Amino acid sequence: MPEGNSLNLVSGVLERLNTALASGDIPGIVEQFQPDCYWRDLVSFTWNIKTMEGRDQITSMLESQLKAVGPSNFRLAPGEPETEADGIAQAWITFETRVARGNGFIRLKNGRIWTLLTVMSELKGHEEPKNLRRPMGAEHGARTDRTSWKERREQESESLGLSEQPYCLIVGGGQGGIALGARLRQLNVPTVIIDKNDKPGDAWRKRYKTLCLHDPVWYDHLPYLPFPDNWPVFSPKDKIGDWLEMYTKVMELNYWGSTLCKSARYDEAAGEWIVEVERGGETITLRPKQLVLATGMSGKPNIPKFKGMDVFKGEQHHSSQHPGPDAYRGKKVVVIGANNSSHDICAALWEAGVDVTMVQRSSTHIVKSDSLMDLGLGDLYSERAVASGMTTWKADMIFASLPYKILHEFQIPIYNKIRERDAEFYKRLERAGFMLDFGDDESGLFMKYLRRGSGYYIDVGASDLVADGKIKLKSNVDVAELKANSVLLSDGTELPADLVVYATGYGSMNGWAADLISREVADKVGKVWGLGSATTKDPGPWEGEQRNMWKPTQQDALWFHGGNLHQSRHYSQYLSLQIKARQEGIPTPVYGLQAVHHVA
Amino acid sequence: MPEGNSLNLVSGVLERLNTALASGDIPGIVEQFQPDCYWRDLVSFTWNIKTMEGRDQITSMLESQLKAVGPSNFRLAPGEPETEADGIAQAWITFETRVARGNGFIRLKNGRIWTLLTVMSELKGHEEPKNLRRPMGAEHGARTDRTSWKERREQESESLGLSEQPYCLIVGGGQGGIALGARLRQLNVPTVIIDKNDKPGDAWRKRYKTLCLHDPVWYDHLPYLPFPDNWPVFSPKDKIGDWLEMYTKVMELNYWGSTLCKSARYDEAAGEWIVEVERGGETITLRPKQLVLATGMSGKPNIPKFKGMDVFKGEQHHSSQHPGPDAYRGKKVVVIGANNSSHDICAALWEAGVDVTMVQRSSTHIVKSDSLMDLGLGDLYSERAVASGMTTWKADMIFASLPYKILHEFQIPIYNKIRERDAEFYKRLERAGFMLDFGDDESGLFMKYLRRGSGYYIDVGASDLVADGKIKLKSNVDVAELKANSVLLSDGTELPADLVVYATGYGSMNGWAADLISREVADKVGKVWGLGSATTKDPGPWEGEQRNMWKPTQQDALWFHGGNLHQSRHYSQYLSLQIKARQEGIPTPVYGLQAVHHVA
Repeated sequence: MPEGNSLNLVSGVLERLNTALASGDIPGIVEQFQPDCYWRDLVSFTWNIKTMEGRDQITSMLESQLKAVGPSNFRLAPGEPETEADGIAQAWITFETRVARGNGFIRLKNGRIWTLLTVMSELKGHEEPKNLRRPMGAEHGARTDRTSWKERREQESESLGLSEQPYCLIVGGGQGGIALGARLRQLNVPTVIIDKNDKPGDAWRKRYKTLCLHDPVWYDHLPYLPFPDNWPVFSPKDKIGDWLEMYTKVMELNYWGSTLCKSARYDEAAGEWIVEVERGGETITLRPKQLVLATGMSGKPNIPKFKGMDVFKGEQHHSSQHPGPDAYRGKKVVVIGANNSSHDICAALWEAGVDVTMVQRSSTHIVKSDSLMDLGLGDLYSERAVASGMTTWKADMIFASLPYKILHEFQIPIYNKIRERDAEFYKRLERAGFMLDFGDDESGLFMKYLRRGSGYYIDVGASDLVADGKIKLKSNVDVAELKANSVLLSDGTELPADLVVYATGYGSMNGWAADLISREVADKVGKVWGLGSATTKDPGPWEGEQRNMWKPTQQDALWFHGGNLHQSRHYSQYLSLQIKARQEGIPTPVYGLQAVHHVA
Repeated sequence: MPEGNSLNLVSGVLERLNTALASGDIPGIVEQFQPDCYWRDLVSFTWNIKTMEGRDQITSMLESQLKAVGPSNFRLAPGEPETEADGIAQAWITFETRVARGNGFIRLKNGRIWTLLTVMSELKGHEEPKNLRRPMGAEHGARTDRTSWKERREQESESLGLSEQPYCLIVGGGQGGIALGARLRQLNVPTVIIDKNDKPGDAWRKRYKTLCLHDPVWYDHLPYLPFPDNWPVFSPKDKIGDWLEMYTKVMELNYWGSTLCKSARYDEAAGEWIVEVERGGETITLRPKQLVLATGMSGKPNIPKFKGMDVFKGEQHHSSQHPGPDAYRGKKVVVIGANNSSHDICAALWEAGVDVTMVQRSSTHIVKSDSLMDLGLGDLYSERAVASGMTTWKADMIFASLPYKILHEFQIPIYNKIRERDAEFYKRLERAGFMLDFGDDESGLFMKYLRRGSGYYIDVGASDLVADGKIKLKSNVDVAELKANSVLLSDGTELPADLVVYATGYGSMNGWAADLISREVADKVGKVWGLGSATTKDPGPWEGEQRNMWKPTQQDALWFHGGNLHQSRHYSQYLSLQIKARQEGIPTPVYGLQAVHHVA
């Protein structure tokens, strides 16, 4: 690593920052930032997930928070010297506030802060019991009131939610609820997770048989217990199901399977939720202080209304209910939609010898899996990254340090490269009539995911079937109506059908709030997901962070958690700390609670 | 790290070694060793587990093996510069043989090799599918004969052992069998593990309720999937049981629970075992090529014969059958023996208010758990070691690099320190009449473990109860006879008893061979465990490695596996490679197959 003046830049800035922080000198703090600057804070300064864009927003935030937060002691992280590349100096940092310790990542341009990421890592006095603080397991010495680990576990699962109320209730026991549950367990927050399925992992097990994760293993680790080195790159669904089941057990989560959430309402006076759940035929009323909906950002099926759906004599179902191809051999299937699920389902149907037609109503972004792994994720999440010393935590932090406002600028060149590399592939698809896009601003898959959570397919083979006409394609059409035995398209084509699959995506997660709580609360909270980028399906105004995810909402004590495995892992840390602080009565002055611009 | 001439010492020796190896110059090789030298080889040169002590033994080994093995390319391990301390230069090394790659650790004294550890790490062409070689999970592309991961797993578990024969059968599904099974799975050796208990982990679950591991978490990791950072230092028995159960599932082992091994015999002509097992009421004949007994080095209860055992009207059982104290409240219990199990059982009984007497027939080595953790294990297996960059693999290798012949010399000073530190503790025990020892040569716990696997207690609290007279102690006595309601001791004391627990240890593992195969084979194989140290319960002659463990025995295709979690983890690697080589027909010329000096 080269040494020189440039490598004391960050230290100098941090020193000046500490001085200004100590004297509450807000202009002195802001002076350390350059004019086009971004400060992304995860809970440590704002008790929110918030990006301050530019000096004015930073000033406002500090005016509101500085006194209450009491930050100090910004330093280079131990053993992590600052580095420099392309005129950007960067470094891993640590700091503390009155109530917490934090980490971060800083980038300087022209000797001033260009991007700053600050995250809360732990609450003072509530550190996680790991490494030097791990539990002893055995209580040495002799005592006449000794209980065993098993007795204590059994006692807890027999009482929590029944004779004792959990502090937190998580509705939804997929990877999101499980990851958050693991974090809360470490923080000693009594928590119950409920899920309609019998066992953890069942939500995966019940999907079509050939489903595998589309994200690679390095991106998918759960907190605390990473997958072993022999884990497949793309986890088969049943294998990830087994992992989640064992994780739930090993992490000692209080998981209620076969439990339906019937209703929830917030008792303002008592400051608690009243939640009716049905467990094993019995109705139980839970009174948690905090309620987390972890029902999946892709959890609430969106089924379009077409004329004639009541007339159609065949089978119809949403992609999330599709059981796989086995029952449809020798039949005719029409799949409405042309994103991930549609491609997966069509390919499996074709492989089983089914006559299958994909109906593409609007354009789709497609990226080949190996190109995405190599160019899109490879520097942070890959065997190559691991070999170069990248850890999951560092990758998550680096990713989080890129401000959403300019993230597309980092993404566009990647997708330009992919377009070039796979030019022949894209040509073949277009020749087959497939409508392609790379996002409104050519920024590709990840931006589409963050903005709208849809509109793409990570190609693992189905695109060749489309290009070759093996999966039949009808594109640039809509569905006019369903007839008794066919689907009539807007161009007059009539497709005979025994089965129609609606691979038509999912609604906003506040739809769950409408179902479980009330329309009023759902509207008060507003749309979940998206950034306000004013691109397709992500209307403005610019909000700067994903709406309502992992942070306070307009409804007291109501939280949304989820996303892919990466997000579940990373953001569960901040959500768990927000909940823990509330449990302990630590003041949590929220800065910049999101406004609601869209109800869904 | 200091630089200087001394830091090229190892490189120079390796260079000269490579030159001599290339030309088959055995004297040239041996010249690199100093006169008092030790070369410990795990499978890579000897296809055995073997320590060559001194130049003559090294010469003999090379004369036998050099041509067949074809070693070359001894180098410093990448990124691991040699270091020097107290006149000893040391380094991590790599090398290869014709069929394998290896690692090792080397120490130089006076510029020549003092200790050399060489281990086989992988067979060329049969590398484990991990990291860069990990499976894809999803098969990208389209194919009409696609099967899912789940279908392949189900197909395998429905056929293996039934319509298809496993290459390897492991009898005993505790941590040893499971760790080995995981290694063999990675090496693609079709393997079935059978165990009499229903589920993996049950052997732990069925023990007395307060049992926790006496070894700490850093020492206990299984292969591939380390415990998370929040795992307790000393695993409670049910928690380790759950871990083993999930490990078996996640590692995709073919585990037959509730299966008894009835008999086994080796068909010399066919080169396979004929093993009768009873599974779910059905008798199944298995014909594996390799048979591993992983039934536990502490698996075969040793129950003494006392006069009057048939007369005694109370309950009697071996410590391994002891259910814990709950049923004995208000009763009188006599525990025969004064080692680990006895102390654990006595303490739990006292905690439950039971009147309990420990009968100590011979002296016991006692070491306080925290002293052992700190002074005995701390440099290699502790949070402090982890923080200093020590990995489990490195710790295992360093431990393995210390020759058994001189290991006690490293241990004696540790126990001298412990004796000093805990002087008051030991005095109190002696005042209570407890007979203490530190091993025949004052070398303490670990040597006792390696030599005889017994004779000690890691104190987690019971010793205070003994010192205080809460656990009553009768020491320096034997049992004269059992009467109808009491135990009569050799000094004439009569102890009224409702329960007698025989905490009297375990027999040699070849007792299992006698039960399952034949007395003849058990005698042919001889005593299992111990070094031949000519100390109590480990008769000479000196054999230099643990008898019959993880290496070829006098019975073709019969192997013993087990030990503590550390040994199960580390030595399963070498046993799995020996089995894999045989499966692949790779020549495995065994050097120095152990002679049999003791039948049990």
